Amino acid sequence: MALKLYIGNKNYSSWSMRPWVLLKQAGIPFEEAMVRFDSFEPGSAFKKSLQGVSPIGKVPVLVDDGFAVWDTLAIAEYLAEKFPEKTLWPANAQARARARSVCAELHSGFGALRSHCPMNIEASLVDTGRLLWRDRPALRADMARLCGLWGELLATQPQKMPDGSGPMLFGTFTIADAFFAPVCMRLKTYQLPLPADLAAYVDRVAALPGVQAWIQDALAEQDFLDFEEPYRLGR
Amino acid sequence: MALKLYIGNKNYSSWSMRPWVLLKQAGIPFEEAMVRFDSFEPGSAFKKSLQGVSPIGKVPVLVDDGFAVWDTLAIAEYLAEKFPEKTLWPANAQARARARSVCAELHSGFGALRSHCPMNIEASLVDTGRLLWRDRPALRADMARLCGLWGELLATQPQKMPDGSGPMLFGTFTIADAFFAPVCMRLKTYQLPLPADLAAYVDRVAALPGVQAWIQDALAEQDFLDFEEPYRLGR
Ligand SMILES: N[C@@H](CCC(=O)N[C@@H](CS)C(=O)NCC(=O)O)C(=O)O
Ligand SMILES: N[C@@H](CCC(=O)N[C@@H](CS)C(=O)NCC(=O)O)C(=O)O
Repeated sequence: MALKLYIGNKNYSSWSMRPWVLLKQAGIPFEEAMVRFDSFEPGSAFKKSLQGVSPIGKVPVLVDDGFAVWDTLAIAEYLAEKFPEKTLWPANAQARARARSVCAELHSGFGALRSHCPMNIEASLVDTGRLLWRDRPALRADMARLCGLWGELLATQPQKMPDGSGPMLFGTFTIADAFFAPVCMRLKTYQLPLPADLAAYVDRVAALPGVQAWIQDALAEQDFLDFEEPYRLGR
Repeated sequence: MALKLYIGNKNYSSWSMRPWVLLKQAGIPFEEAMVRFDSFEPGSAFKKSLQGVSPIGKVPVLVDDGFAVWDTLAIAEYLAEKFPEKTLWPANAQARARARSVCAELHSGFGALRSHCPMNIEASLVDTGRLLWRDRPALRADMARLCGLWGELLATQPQKMPDGSGPMLFGTFTIADAFFAPVCMRLKTYQLPLPADLAAYVDRVAALPGVQAWIQDALAEQDFLDFEEPYRLGR
């Protein structure tokens, strides 16, 4: 098969989740190679597996007939170009620009959410979430921006899509929803406070077949990696 | 005029430099609005000036007939779509994918270079650079990756372009060179060690008319902002 996606542990690897969910939800066939996160040290099995695959030794990497594309944003653009019929970005030019702004903003921002609330799909860390919420103003600031961003986008969408479901950020599913999918996972794990309409969006994302497929695989993993677990001693 | 670009201090604002240099070097006319970095606090003149312009209160922001595009990567994609005749991304699909990989990698990576060596075009911080090089392994790791990345890309280009000049990362000037332009500025200010062929690339970038125009404006600014100056007490 032409497309092969290298990813990390599904329970932990938020970056990997994006292109995987994008491919799955868009119905693009691909082969998957899971590279377990034993460690990120130079001699680790993880780094060795990626030698000759990616020059930066990180996941995700998409390999298309031997040609490697790394970094989630570049992978998303590559897929959008390769499969124009899937309209992975919104078809409207301004909506597409907006979608790229929010994905790029997420790509280099939301540092507090990222560092304090690492993705851990199987875990329920409600008390941790409460403590973080109380003690981390930068996390509250990230959440305020996230709510502003989602709220503004969803406000311009119809309440119901033709199939009766609620809207994604740009109406139908796009790269933007795939990018925010790991954020939705974090919000669930740490139960960070959200207005009801945005909590409903989180639930809609979690219910997408492509996201459900990832979650099921993540739950089946039953792996435990200390360096991805600042808040748990064991499963 | 249709396009208006909001930027920060030219001496300091590495993110602003990218789309400005891109527009200038590509010969795309635009109006510029410089928003001085008095502070990034909520009540600052900087934040007030961006109210109603950008929902994230950061520069750069490109405004096209009232429509705001923020984040450098999204601005670059927007311009590439709006001016296809300028081939701002490489024309070849694989080269384009590679250019996006390295830009996206830069966008969310190179944290040590970014934090230890903030852009400061007018300053010469050679001893600071030596100390950082000695004491910061993460900076040396970022530089090793940067050299690998540049070296690999330049190795596939002709030694001389048709006009006799040396190559840019993808032959002729593209978004990738605009993205690395602030990195080149940092390397000059801190004089971080580089192989000769890569130092020559840095010089070629610095000599581009679009980059020269930015540098001249930066030197004329003669502003001094404590929070952008971890290594100087004054000018
Ligand atoms: N900006 C990159 C980030 C990728 C990334 O950091 N991946 C993590 C796993 S989620 C990784 O491979 N880390 C290995 C390391 O840091 O050495 C992207 O968008 O793909
Ligand atoms: N990822 C953004 C980063 C923009 C950014 O951080 N800009 C700085 C100036 S160089 C800023 O406006 N900072 C204001 C703040 O952090 O409040 C981009 O690519 O545009």
